[in-house]
Amino acid sequence: MTSIAGFRFSAAAAGIKKNGGLDVALVVADEPVAAAGVFTRNLVRAAPVDVAEERVSRGRLQAVLVNAGNANACTGEPGLRAVLDTTAAVAEALGVEPSRVAPASTGVIGKVLPTEQIVAVVPTLVAELSADGAGRFAEAILTTDRWTKTATAEVRQGEQVARFLGIAKGAGMIHPDLGPQRPLQPAGPPHATMLAFVVTDAVVDVQLLQQCLERAADLTFNACSVDGDTSTNDTLLVLASGRSGVTPSAEELTAALVEVCRPLAREMVRDGEGAEHAVDIVVRGLESEAAARQIAKTVATSPLVKTALYGKDANWGRLLAAAGRAGVPFDPRVASVRVGDVCICERGLPTGAEAEARAAVIMRENTYAIELVLGEGPGEFTYVTSDLGHGYVDVNAGYRS
Amino acid sequence: MTSIAGFRFSAAAAGIKKNGGLDVALVVADEPVAAAGVFTRNLVRAAPVDVAEERVSRGRLQAVLVNAGNANACTGEPGLRAVLDTTAAVAEALGVEPSRVAPASTGVIGKVLPTEQIVAVVPTLVAELSADGAGRFAEAILTTDRWTKTATAEVRQGEQVARFLGIAKGAGMIHPDLGPQRPLQPAGPPHATMLAFVVTDAVVDVQLLQQCLERAADLTFNACSVDGDTSTNDTLLVLASGRSGVTPSAEELTAALVEVCRPLAREMVRDGEGAEHAVDIVVRGLESEAAARQIAKTVATSPLVKTALYGKDANWGRLLAAAGRAGVPFDPRVASVRVGDVCICERGLPTGAEAEARAAVIMRENTYAIELVLGEGPGEFTYVTSDLGHGYVDVNAGYRS
Repeated sequence: MTSIAGFRFSAAAAGIKKNGGLDVALVVADEPVAAAGVFTRNLVRAAPVDVAEERVSRGRLQAVLVNAGNANACTGEPGLRAVLDTTAAVAEALGVEPSRVAPASTGVIGKVLPTEQIVAVVPTLVAELSADGAGRFAEAILTTDRWTKTATAEVRQGEQVARFLGIAKGAGMIHPDLGPQRPLQPAGPPHATMLAFVVTDAVVDVQLLQQCLERAADLTFNACSVDGDTSTNDTLLVLASGRSGVTPSAEELTAALVEVCRPLAREMVRDGEGAEHAVDIVVRGLESEAAARQIAKTVATSPLVKTALYGKDANWGRLLAAAGRAGVPFDPRVASVRVGDVCICERGLPTGAEAEARAAVIMRENTYAIELVLGEGPGEFTYVTSDLGHGYVDVNAGYRS
Repeated sequence: MTSIAGFRFSAAAAGIKKNGGLDVALVVADEPVAAAGVFTRNLVRAAPVDVAEERVSRGRLQAVLVNAGNANACTGEPGLRAVLDTTAAVAEALGVEPSRVAPASTGVIGKVLPTEQIVAVVPTLVAELSADGAGRFAEAILTTDRWTKTATAEVRQGEQVARFLGIAKGAGMIHPDLGPQRPLQPAGPPHATMLAFVVTDAVVDVQLLQQCLERAADLTFNACSVDGDTSTNDTLLVLASGRSGVTPSAEELTAALVEVCRPLAREMVRDGEGAEHAVDIVVRGLESEAAARQIAKTVATSPLVKTALYGKDANWGRLLAAAGRAGVPFDPRVASVRVGDVCICERGLPTGAEAEARAAVIMRENTYAIELVLGEGPGEFTYVTSDLGHGYVDVNAGYRS
């Protein structure tokens, strides 16, 4: 696992996960470093999200404490107290201000985070911090995920290199809507969630980092969907140590964040609860990126489209019908639809059974792209979605029973 | 089956349905009568929708020709010609203007309506017209429906009575968005669709009829969802013969249309492809009906909510989380959630496992209500939704194969 100058990681088993696996993770910077974050825009949010947003808004963090197995959501005052107490325990052990420690939680809802169990492993977490500990960190934050999710990127300036490492989890309730906008009121419920953490040794201005992170989130995590349901705990944090001495431009910084976040988002979809496919829904030819995004999102979240993906059915009719209800103007008579390189609909009319049969073969792949060209405009956007089949029903109809 | 003064019905088998069943239906008024209609707002629409909308906009219709088994969608010019030719054949046989005959189609997409097969049964359709033929009409328009759907209402003024009869079909691609707003451009795809026809002997002004129909559609068909996917063929038509001599007020007319359309909408959801439950999502306490509708719609179309309904899981967390991403402000700390008469969430916090177990028993019923009270405001709205389970996946992953 890549290491990033200025950061150390650790993980421990606090007994929150029933299977006894790693369930608490810590990343620590050598000193307070530039930080930015985006959080779920769901009105209903868990206590750790509110605390993390408040702390990151100060622009500097030194540590992030993550737990899996308990979302600490819909837990009221006791839940908030658990967030404050556990992060305070980490701050004390590290000798830093509590406001420098951001929390993040994922797991079942309606149960207060077990403060004592977490506080009990803090000495271990701090003692075992290691520059090579990112792999254990990535494992500890998983819930229903089948595999760990990490990605890297670099910004090169001559001989110098700034490195980026992203670590994420997420497999259900995946339809992130991350942004700076504060909802009305805190509170909190649900369960499966996306959490993602990026550490870099780039030199960054905090405001610029926040702006670039918001743009990168819009192009990656906010453009993927397993089930169209936005969690109450979704969190994306980035910490920058500056140790590389490389100061990326805004474009370089955004590009590097996208390069890290895009594969993490794709892996979350591919690991979607019960999913067998991760499909890029590429929409082109609209007046603007926003118009293309709206259509891509509508197609990517259509249950009829997602069941067709599961059934390997090159159903251009469902694709066009979903596009048509997105609320964005286009002329269906010029629409074309491609599955991989096979055109199944040209100028709004089907190209025939033979083409659909060839497309169905492509739809057996784990990942492929469906392209809707709906005009001549410059606006395009790609959404990543999963299929909806029996596995999804099994996971979600029986989640709590 | 109820008869309505001034209307006769018939049905025939034209060989469009593979099983040889009734697949063409005709309703005829004794003379041109007041008519109103609302049609899918999907940008992508089948040819019969465009023709029907143009003809009903003239305010008077004398007949409606419906076929099931072929949506005549995504069929370009040949599809349009088939609509014009088949309705012309009916007009000629009845001795009326072609513009007085509205078409409606539902079924598979991408195939041109077989003009000759339909024209061949027109003499039979006209010869067999009967005041008692509504039952056969209701049967002929079905596609994947498991049962026919009819409903009645009355407006009484002293001794006199105006009667309303509604006939509908629909089981999949059910998320109607019916309205007067014309989309940019015609064209057309998909398949399963809602079609509904209301006939009445009330005396009505055409403009008032159109206004009341739009309001009734918003409260009924536009407030139900099987899969969140709006079809390209959705059509709701009302014809009023005036033969009762009763002139309802706007309130009476709207109420009667709602009384007919609401059970039809509920039956469509209960008959939803693969569904086992029809659940009222009742949202109260918002500032406006529009705010309550937006939340009710978001909850009713959430895949995580719908799989929880399938799993009989009183998952207040998923319900609140879906409400929280609807884009409508409310304070989650005052939110309460009821399943039937069992409160599972009070002031944003769970009421415990015992309440959830009692709620789970209610969730075994075919129909029940879930109520979210999110504030003190007067705005409320009810959406009807179905559960999402293995049956839905079976129907929709294998529809065309």
